[in-house]
Amino acid sequence: MDTPDALAWRDGHIEALDQTALPHQVRTRRIATVDQLVAAITSLAIRGAPVLGAAGALGVALAARQAQDEDWDDTRLDAEIKRIADARPTAVNLGREVAAVAARIGEGSQAVQAAALAVLDRTAAASRRISERGAAYLVQACGAGPLRVHTHCNTGSLACLGWGTALGVIRALHDDRALSLVIVDETRPLLQGARLTCWELDQLGIEHRLACDGAGPFLISQHLADAVVVGADRIAANGDVANKIGTYGLALAARRAGIPFLVAAPESTIDEATPAGAAIPLEQRPDEEITVPAAPAGTKALNFAFDIAPAELVSAVVTEQRLIPNGQWPAARAEGHPG
Amino acid sequence: MDTPDALAWRDGHIEALDQTALPHQVRTRRIATVDQLVAAITSLAIRGAPVLGAAGALGVALAARQAQDEDWDDTRLDAEIKRIADARPTAVNLGREVAAVAARIGEGSQAVQAAALAVLDRTAAASRRISERGAAYLVQACGAGPLRVHTHCNTGSLACLGWGTALGVIRALHDDRALSLVIVDETRPLLQGARLTCWELDQLGIEHRLACDGAGPFLISQHLADAVVVGADRIAANGDVANKIGTYGLALAARRAGIPFLVAAPESTIDEATPAGAAIPLEQRPDEEITVPAAPAGTKALNFAFDIAPAELVSAVVTEQRLIPNGQWPAARAEGHPG
Repeated sequence: MDTPDALAWRDGHIEALDQTALPHQVRTRRIATVDQLVAAITSLAIRGAPVLGAAGALGVALAARQAQDEDWDDTRLDAEIKRIADARPTAVNLGREVAAVAARIGEGSQAVQAAALAVLDRTAAASRRISERGAAYLVQACGAGPLRVHTHCNTGSLACLGWGTALGVIRALHDDRALSLVIVDETRPLLQGARLTCWELDQLGIEHRLACDGAGPFLISQHLADAVVVGADRIAANGDVANKIGTYGLALAARRAGIPFLVAAPESTIDEATPAGAAIPLEQRPDEEITVPAAPAGTKALNFAFDIAPAELVSAVVTEQRLIPNGQWPAARAEGHPG
Repeated sequence: MDTPDALAWRDGHIEALDQTALPHQVRTRRIATVDQLVAAITSLAIRGAPVLGAAGALGVALAARQAQDEDWDDTRLDAEIKRIADARPTAVNLGREVAAVAARIGEGSQAVQAAALAVLDRTAAASRRISERGAAYLVQACGAGPLRVHTHCNTGSLACLGWGTALGVIRALHDDRALSLVIVDETRPLLQGARLTCWELDQLGIEHRLACDGAGPFLISQHLADAVVVGADRIAANGDVANKIGTYGLALAARRAGIPFLVAAPESTIDEATPAGAAIPLEQRPDEEITVPAAPAGTKALNFAFDIAPAELVSAVVTEQRLIPNGQWPAARAEGHPG
């Protein structure tokens, strides 16, 4: 069984699976305006770094169509495109794909639409290659298994189109009969692990167990997983990885337990313009995502949506083009870090 | 402002604050039978290692009264007392205080009741001394501050009577004007941090921020806290600490960030009969605590209620009697570990 498409372009508008309604409802949202797209992105109805890139690309096509319909001038069109790019700050894919497609605006709406659709195709194709390369890496690092893999957040077809990144690696292991179990962090506050990853694994018939985020490091210390595999929202030029909050603790625990900590992400996630993790903007989301309904009224929160796993703790990054092992980041080597 | 008593003995029955109803309702539960007590403990209406010890002590008095009223024979009374001791497995305090009070059964119901009430007094008095010793340790380790302290779960008067253990340390720092902020993990799945610790800090007028459990290690890595302080459910003879799930990741992060990781607990938490953390039984609770309502129906979970922080990662343990610094556990030294 397969999962429905997270994102598609139909008759001049975007159709997106509403990821806030899963797993209890499989509901599609029709997005015909920039306002609707920005709302879908900020509410996480559309989410996952690679899908955000694809949504941004389609968003430029949407804005170009809306500009024609509503007779926007160039200043207005530029401003609307910038709103899409800025809808969430951490995933580099969003701003990058928006900029790439926006550069084609002068060529007319057909060219813009073709460029946007090419981003979707490229994203899906990349995730398949990432999946296979990541699975091969884990089998080489851990033995033929069958492996028990710990993962975080949601990085499957909902987040990435195609197979996914980290969850794509898991799917490739499953297809190769090299997987026995997936341990899924629930991923508070928005529970993408519990809601989305468990649902995708269910659809694929892959054995899994859900755990609280706080349990992850301990389960790893007890050798209940052979490897950790996660996605990324942005990778700095030195190899530091920004990913969903909760990733850093898993990286620490994997290092101490001596198991691989693999990051699976498309090349578009690597941001050469950001020298190190400390320079990556980390989205802070509303307190109420954490405080409601359990905490007393008026409780304040610290709600970082992402954290940074330092390159030193990352065993390898796999992309659609290459495997970058620990210590092999060109930017880090240029600065004299161990090669 | 102060918080109400977690536990009291009134006219031959137990009155307990229902901790499952907080923070939205402050509701007392009247417990007149062993059945009611076991249900209150397993549902976590009564919780926290020191309070579990006190509840176990009162439970023996309750069982003795019920034995008279309902004409139980000794076999039945022993079985009922064993049910109380076994209601939850990880906190050593419960079984230990039950055994201590049960040893007085032959002396008559007045002696049993007096012994049980002495446990309550001793628990409250211990928590005050733990609080002051812990605060002094942190001021010495971190400087006069004011300090920002990261904590986990709930270890205040609700869990411990009196001031509490880890939260007592925080309260003592606050009283000494040596505290600026508390970062509170929400503590999934039952949210004792969000529900109970935020409520207690609110009552005490102490500035705090709530964070997701997965965020804890990262916030520590960003130097948003000067120290971590937690309680304990059992401490093995070598200094390994069993505490609420999520503690291990904080200990790892504190070590890497170079900040103190302090454990605050009464002497009754130290279990000389358990040589190391690996021998501590870790309660596994129902899947539904994690899977409902977010995950797809039928999702299975890994729901360990506790984890183990190895002694090596613990900067110090403070009890009502002493400070035990890293590496100074007699049992560990006897086995030839570094002293």
